[in-house]
Amino acid sequence: MCSKCNTVFYDNPKIVAGCIPQWNDTVLLCKRAIEPRHGYWTLPAGFMENAETTFEAAARETLEEANARVEIVDLYTVFSIPHTSQVYMMFRAKLADLDFSPGEESLECGLYREDQIPWDDLAFPTILHTLKFYFEDRKRGAFPLRSGDIVWDKNGAVFAPRRR
Amino acid sequence: MCSKCNTVFYDNPKIVAGCIPQWNDTVLLCKRAIEPRHGYWTLPAGFMENAETTFEAAARETLEEANARVEIVDLYTVFSIPHTSQVYMMFRAKLADLDFSPGEESLECGLYREDQIPWDDLAFPTILHTLKFYFEDRKRGAFPLRSGDIVWDKNGAVFAPRRR
Repeated sequence: MCSKCNTVFYDNPKIVAGCIPQWNDTVLLCKRAIEPRHGYWTLPAGFMENAETTFEAAARETLEEANARVEIVDLYTVFSIPHTSQVYMMFRAKLADLDFSPGEESLECGLYREDQIPWDDLAFPTILHTLKFYFEDRKRGAFPLRSGDIVWDKNGAVFAPRRR
Repeated sequence: MCSKCNTVFYDNPKIVAGCIPQWNDTVLLCKRAIEPRHGYWTLPAGFMENAETTFEAAARETLEEANARVEIVDLYTVFSIPHTSQVYMMFRAKLADLDFSPGEESLECGLYREDQIPWDDLAFPTILHTLKFYFEDRKRGAFPLRSGDIVWDKNGAVFAPRRR
């Protein structure tokens, strides 16, 4: 309901679309300049907007957050987060060139190999699990769709193929 | 904006979650008792709600529209519809038993083989393309993720692997 006038609005889960911009054996990460998780690292991703497709949303967010152009390859992860009523859709992507720089919502951007990823300073569990799946699958040379849920148990956020 | 008091709200694309309930060589269809497309046929599907997962939304809609219980198998189609700001996510599913009946939003429900599907009376292009992919893939015995966009050209709604 509108808190001012009590008109009823429908509120539904939001889609967060983003990508894994790949360049040789590295991926492009951004350090967040905004809350939540200011100062932590993320893949380019954000709320999908009306009248766009999921592919377009992922590419737009990458342009906004890292001034980077990508060729979207394919849908790779679909994670439900019932706790926050979000669905993350992350795409594999190829970085078009090295002409990138921090957008308004980023403090810095850079290319990171698996062993250089700031694993302990990632912004969200969805980003952690997307990157873990990605480097695992890259070793095998196959990228099946990874779908499931991010749920909270006594140890914090965990990935579940489906909510238990 | 709230049309009464001008408070600003964010409006984002909505997820429509549903499934293809399979029973031997048939699938469960419902005839819509509500607008839009009253009287036309659909797979069980509807707007995902807050605090649920995409799997749960697909199963809930099937229970509501056909009083049917399903075991969700896997995500199968992800279609963006920029024209209506929707993202359809349809799952493959196994119907648990034959104890189904029309829910409040359905006039009737029934099991249909490929050659019995009312192809000319389907409610939405997303349903048409989901069913076309499904029967095509079933012949091959493999169900890769089908992702893309439903866009409108001079001939009406067409499926595009990505908006052109």
